Amino acid sequence: MIRYLEVRTSRREELVDVGPLVRKALQEAGLREGVVHLWSLHTTCALTVNENADPDVARDLVGAMARLAPRDDPGYRHREGNSDAHLKTSLFGPGLTLLVENGDLVLGTWQGVFLAEWDGPRVRRVAVRFSS
Amino acid sequence: MIRYLEVRTSRREELVDVGPLVRKALQEAGLREGVVHLWSLHTTCALTVNENADPDVARDLVGAMARLAPRDDPGYRHREGNSDAHLKTSLFGPGLTLLVENGDLVLGTWQGVFLAEWDGPRVRRVAVRFSS
Amino acid sequence: MIRYLEVRTSRREELVDVGPLVRKALQEAGLREGVVHLWSLHTTCALTVNENADPDVARDLVGAMARLAPRDDPGYRHREGNSDAHLKTSLFGPGLTLLVENGDLVLGTWQGVFLAEWDGPRVRRVAVRFSS
Repeated sequence: MIRYLEVRTSRREELVDVGPLVRKALQEAGLREGVVHLWSLHTTCALTVNENADPDVARDLVGAMARLAPRDDPGYRHREGNSDAHLKTSLFGPGLTLLVENGDLVLGTWQGVFLAEWDGPRVRRVAVRFSS
Repeated sequence: MIRYLEVRTSRREELVDVGPLVRKALQEAGLREGVVHLWSLHTTCALTVNENADPDVARDLVGAMARLAPRDDPGYRHREGNSDAHLKTSLFGPGLTLLVENGDLVLGTWQGVFLAEWDGPRVRRVAVRFSS
Repeated sequence: MIRYLEVRTSRREELVDVGPLVRKALQEAGLREGVVHLWSLHTTCALTVNENADPDVARDLVGAMARLAPRDDPGYRHREGNSDAHLKTSLFGPGLTLLVENGDLVLGTWQGVFLAEWDGPRVRRVAVRFSS
């Protein structure tokens, strides 16, 4: 059975903490041990795990990715003006497989789960499958 | 049981749509619900999911990666002249876990599954495992 | 059941071959067919698979990533001085799902499994879950 998370983003580029949404779905599914497969259904946003303690880390990631993949690179041919967002999506990746133990995600102390929006603001959908 | 997909690439760098091959293997396996684990057996090509509607998106990805990881970077020590291809492989990643529902891949409207060739042309092999 | 690998790194940035540790855990678990989910519990190191034959490949990856994500980029706001390490972690990714057949990892001839240390030296922990 696949569940779907809905994530509303508010800027063109930002990292949105989706940990609470994933944990809520986990509790509803009642999974105690296993894995959670997350899959973004879009080509201009990604999923990643990084620090969620100091919000400057997420901001630095967004800023550094903008320098790494400049939006106005004259080499792009795709006419929608969002080739940078497609590139960032493949660099971070559209899916994550997280471990579950004792009914909770197995994450390090500082790890948070983020949707990386690269071409928002939009409403994004993430497919979730639990496996024991 | 592991199946193997064979992908023949035709240029040094290109994105090849392997969605039809993956769907064919899925139908042969008869999997209705679960996940598909894909794994490239090489260190100079990767797997990714991105837009397969406008072919310029894939071309832009290849071009942008060439600017991000220049082939002739004087800092490389590996003598085969393909350190850029190794780098791109770790950046996109060699594996994907895709969701399956009703006998088909769970993908967004614009998402296609690609083998990203970074040091072709070659014949590439992708290992596939289905899990219900 | 989740097992934990401990990896001691010796430099700020390096790729450490963790294949032997993963294979040892695989043998202890007695898994013959299935998948191994690996998850780094940190936000400044990643997991990747790349060539482990010529050590210059791993060195080139470390060097190229340093040029891609410079440590002293004046755009960073996070004050710990390791925003580059956070960025590299999301670029390579914190998790891997490897295939298992006949009691061994399904890898290509040249593929090795690496922990990519971006802010060491430290002792790192990798969570491992086997699934048949």
